Amino acid sequence: MASTRKIELADALALGPNWRHLCYVMLYAPNPGVLFGGHILLNYSVLMSMRFDGRLGFPGGFVDDNSPTLEEGLSKELLQKLGEGVSTFNIVSTDYRSSLIEITSKVVAHFYVKCLTLEQLQAVEAGAPLAKDHGLEVLGLVRVPLYTLQDGVGGLPAFLDNSFIGVAREQLLEALQDLGILAPGTVSDLKGRIVQLKQTLKLIRSRAERT
Amino acid sequence: MASTRKIELADALALGPNWRHLCYVMLYAPNPGVLFGGHILLNYSVLMSMRFDGRLGFPGGFVDDNSPTLEEGLSKELLQKLGEGVSTFNIVSTDYRSSLIEITSKVVAHFYVKCLTLEQLQAVEAGAPLAKDHGLEVLGLVRVPLYTLQDGVGGLPAFLDNSFIGVAREQLLEALQDLGILAPGTVSDLKGRIVQLKQTLKLIRSRAERT
Repeated sequence: MASTRKIELADALALGPNWRHLCYVMLYAPNPGVLFGGHILLNYSVLMSMRFDGRLGFPGGFVDDNSPTLEEGLSKELLQKLGEGVSTFNIVSTDYRSSLIEITSKVVAHFYVKCLTLEQLQAVEAGAPLAKDHGLEVLGLVRVPLYTLQDGVGGLPAFLDNSFIGVAREQLLEALQDLGILAPGTVSDLKGRIVQLKQTLKLIRSRAERT
Repeated sequence: MASTRKIELADALALGPNWRHLCYVMLYAPNPGVLFGGHILLNYSVLMSMRFDGRLGFPGGFVDDNSPTLEEGLSKELLQKLGEGVSTFNIVSTDYRSSLIEITSKVVAHFYVKCLTLEQLQAVEAGAPLAKDHGLEVLGLVRVPLYTLQDGVGGLPAFLDNSFIGVAREQLLEALQDLGILAPGTVSDLKGRIVQLKQTLKLIRSRAERT
């Protein structure tokens, strides 16, 4: 979404019938696993999906008008995008985090965060290749590396250099900070990296336009 | 791998015991599916994996010294990285494509390309979440979008903007061209995009060093 701003949920729900509501969710679970013989503690697993457009994002989609609540609409979308593995949990109103409005396209995007057990998260992964939209709108599910390797780049910093849809990258970092999964200092360093990346891409684009 | 050059397979195999051999494979299958009600023909599905370091690459790994051939070593690695779904096919010597040598680290990397049926590829995807290395060295499998959406960026161009390990991005494009999956003109345009992106990243790095 091009130019977005935050909006309160109540205001978003009062927008009227000409607006479309997009819902997506960060599914995550505590994970006691370790990498490289214990040198890295995983702590958590967080899921994102590779979208049909080659960008990473959170699973979800447009809620249809027949859904009585946003959460039910989101659950329906998840079933289609991620398959039967999502039937072990319900998205509820307390999983809601924030909404963004994009006035030109008349779209409101609602972001949810859902804590699962590791077994539930694994069931989502196992079911995903059999989902209706697999290989079409969803090209695969990936876990987000939450650690930084010794070289200071591999892991989360390199992951954040990937292509993301809209503000998914920023929402990932903010959610990880709010949930206490990442320390505020780490998030602020990573955000600095993203700003620098965006500025340089902008510079290159304006150079390309001039030539 | 930092500075690499091509090497003939026979020369690579004669390097001696101090060298480590890395093998990886592009698994792909013809796919008659369509996206968006037939507006986009999929033609093929190609698999890549999200690695522990947050970068995309081809599945594979270091071949252990006990493997009688590179192909058997690669198959062993695939079983560990991708799970039981790989047992429906064998990697054979005719799947071999090219090798790269990295002198400083004494590593030779061998690239294979394997054509599967769509059912075999789906079996790999279905088995992957249960693989030994899933959630550890491998964070997920994704299909590569081989089309370009109407905006000229979404699809393969945006996918190529992601983070890739070593020369995986270039190998993907070359393989797609050699197999006739992408037209040479398309590949040349996409390569131009990558060169521009790499220059951008170099600029970012040099700026970061100056501050």
